[in-house]
Amino acid sequence: MAKQIRLNAFDMNCVAHQSSGMWRHPHDRSWTYKDLEYWLELARVLERGKFDGIFLADVLGVYDVYGGSADAALRNATQIPVNDPFLVIPAMAVVTENLAFGVTGTLSYESPFQFARRMSTLDHLTKGRIGWNIVTGYLESAAKGAGLDKQSAHDLRYDIADEYMQVAYKLWEGSWDEAAVVRDRKAGIFTQPRKVRKIDHKGEHYTVNAIHLCEPSPQRTPVLYQAGASGKGREFAARHAECVFMAAPTKQIIANSVADIRRRAAAHGRNPAEVLIFALATVIPGPTDEAAKAKLEEYQSYVSHEGALALVSGWTGIDFSKYALDDVVRYIENDAIRSTVETLTVADPDRSWTIRQIAEFAGIGGMAPVIVGSPSKVVDELISWVRDTDIDGFNLAYAVTPESFTDFVDLIVPEMQRRGVYKREYTPGTFREKLFGQGRIRLAADHPAQLYRHSAL
Amino acid sequence: MAKQIRLNAFDMNCVAHQSSGMWRHPHDRSWTYKDLEYWLELARVLERGKFDGIFLADVLGVYDVYGGSADAALRNATQIPVNDPFLVIPAMAVVTENLAFGVTGTLSYESPFQFARRMSTLDHLTKGRIGWNIVTGYLESAAKGAGLDKQSAHDLRYDIADEYMQVAYKLWEGSWDEAAVVRDRKAGIFTQPRKVRKIDHKGEHYTVNAIHLCEPSPQRTPVLYQAGASGKGREFAARHAECVFMAAPTKQIIANSVADIRRRAAAHGRNPAEVLIFALATVIPGPTDEAAKAKLEEYQSYVSHEGALALVSGWTGIDFSKYALDDVVRYIENDAIRSTVETLTVADPDRSWTIRQIAEFAGIGGMAPVIVGSPSKVVDELISWVRDTDIDGFNLAYAVTPESFTDFVDLIVPEMQRRGVYKREYTPGTFREKLFGQGRIRLAADHPAQLYRHSAL
Repeated sequence: MAKQIRLNAFDMNCVAHQSSGMWRHPHDRSWTYKDLEYWLELARVLERGKFDGIFLADVLGVYDVYGGSADAALRNATQIPVNDPFLVIPAMAVVTENLAFGVTGTLSYESPFQFARRMSTLDHLTKGRIGWNIVTGYLESAAKGAGLDKQSAHDLRYDIADEYMQVAYKLWEGSWDEAAVVRDRKAGIFTQPRKVRKIDHKGEHYTVNAIHLCEPSPQRTPVLYQAGASGKGREFAARHAECVFMAAPTKQIIANSVADIRRRAAAHGRNPAEVLIFALATVIPGPTDEAAKAKLEEYQSYVSHEGALALVSGWTGIDFSKYALDDVVRYIENDAIRSTVETLTVADPDRSWTIRQIAEFAGIGGMAPVIVGSPSKVVDELISWVRDTDIDGFNLAYAVTPESFTDFVDLIVPEMQRRGVYKREYTPGTFREKLFGQGRIRLAADHPAQLYRHSAL
Repeated sequence: MAKQIRLNAFDMNCVAHQSSGMWRHPHDRSWTYKDLEYWLELARVLERGKFDGIFLADVLGVYDVYGGSADAALRNATQIPVNDPFLVIPAMAVVTENLAFGVTGTLSYESPFQFARRMSTLDHLTKGRIGWNIVTGYLESAAKGAGLDKQSAHDLRYDIADEYMQVAYKLWEGSWDEAAVVRDRKAGIFTQPRKVRKIDHKGEHYTVNAIHLCEPSPQRTPVLYQAGASGKGREFAARHAECVFMAAPTKQIIANSVADIRRRAAAHGRNPAEVLIFALATVIPGPTDEAAKAKLEEYQSYVSHEGALALVSGWTGIDFSKYALDDVVRYIENDAIRSTVETLTVADPDRSWTIRQIAEFAGIGGMAPVIVGSPSKVVDELISWVRDTDIDGFNLAYAVTPESFTDFVDLIVPEMQRRGVYKREYTPGTFREKLFGQGRIRLAADHPAQLYRHSAL
């Protein structure tokens, strides 16, 4: 059987996730993000298309690097306003049975004790359909909201994150034994006290002396996602992540990153094939190549350069407002900018990029490929990405929502199924079972969280 | 028109909220708290009964005073395990249109910046059906979970809470002007930057330098609930609360508290009639008085003394495990215990209470009246409570869930409607409009949060 392609839909509880300006398109409904109806419809569409999951990004601050203020971000609704991603999940769970929910949780500003309860609650309510995208945060503005002068240094953030994971594993895996809850009506015993343990964690960054507040949820630890691209980030992913999310515009960059992550995972004694890797992509399909191309061009006419550059400025820390749209990047005397767009030049090192072209590229789905064409052409391309880079699937951004997802489900999913590269039915069970096979409800035996099970805490 | 009686259902995302041992009753479904189905069914029942809201309690720790450990609480599922209350609300919102959701948020362990976003998100998703029960926490074990040695002192907790409210008001009321979001497709402007302000709060306990992450939600500030019974707590309620929740076993105690709260509210320049007061009560109705009495007796046979005393020990800080069930309280040489049960003796100062009787009283719905009888008798009693104490309605605890609520909706609601003391239709609009009249979407003009609107922050 051909390798099965995994699919996540990539969205965020905000107006213009990674397609800046597109909220002006008459079909776009992203501005209704604050209504339940948007999320219920999206969830139904994705489950109809047998998507593995919906992956919800998040930030806890504003993009205020561009022009030195949040003005451009506000004008363009560049991920601001932005609502809490956790709270749309229970609603979507009501109208679906198999769709999983990967949610971004920024660990820098919340105690692991309360956070662990929120995740366990979601895992209970969804009967084991929860994943957690572990994020340390990258916006200075988020630190200011939390009352700090600035973020912790990048590497320190990952050290703190490592300890946070330890505490979370202790709570999820170690505090309640499997048979703790007996619900024995005759004896009047709901939980056997001797099978519940206080964790007593005294670390460098966290102190927790408590039992986990929740009885064991189906998966205990949610499926763990990570997206760090730096060396420290990859090392963290290789240790902890079951799924890794990557974003880059070319196959070669992705292939190198995939090989590196798998190598690092193996070095940690984990099965490298069981770190599932999802590459960001935007698909614009049409009944014919020409129709798809026309659709892309129509979308592109709505891209906001300012909004897209506000986003790229936030990601890179470079204020792109200081340059004219027609400035050619290779002639700008700024090492940081050149390094930022280096990724764009890997495929064709001789190509020149203007600031405008960067905005237009990033303005549809972010810094990642836009795959355009008929079902047959799109599926060829998806298969070639999987084959050439060793990824396991895609994190699909939208240009226009939910149209981009509806188009994909109606046009591309049937073609993928016809080619035998996509499931016709969901695997029963929890999210982890759907990803790794029936019976695999809990973390794999080679995962470091195992250290915290049934051990003296 | 007779005074309209308000109703909240009182529940918690746990097994045995305030009716310890009742999870063993064959009809009780409280042990399915972790499934969406429980909450969806409950929400539908309550909306059918035109309940104003469901009020969700919460704790962030365990009841470990009784016997000096969490063992009794665990055995009896005394509010442990306990899941997050926020996450069941979006699911219930999917299947209801008018039911409001009052949720307990413990402010001691979460940054106001993130908390404000969660509340705004819920207010958006429910189209303005959210209330917040402001709680500072009372369990030492919760402080230990959050990594602290112990809680802040009681009075200091309320000072911290006051500053927390200031920050929250600034975010909810002051950061985004009414007309900030224009969604002007032609001009490409989603939000007008000059109509969004950073709050720059530097206080004794909190520092926040950020814009609120959410665009204005229907109510902006959620309907504010408070339940503090101490002097400091009442003072806090009189300043901030739009609804107050009280729990006491006799009319006289309630009447005194109501008068005190209304007096304090007036002293703060607020309309004392617009602090709506809900008294805790449990109603066991039956088609006849005899049938109801038989039902109560059957319920009582399931009460767990140990579980109920674990609860009362947690509330009072007194370890009741040190006494025999048949010890008579007035003969116990312990001032704290005598003061705890003083409330029980107001109605009949000559009555003796044993520890067992206290457990049995608290074991059905907590330290509050249990009203038992035919519809006519129950409604007589409810009306007399409202008349004699000046309360506005009831916070109804369950003995067995959802049976206690279903019984109330089927038997008591029609009788209340027949007597003209209960609505036949919901008022359209937000929760605040349902409570205070159409058009009253935002906090009243005499509420202190007004200080933080459109002002220089």
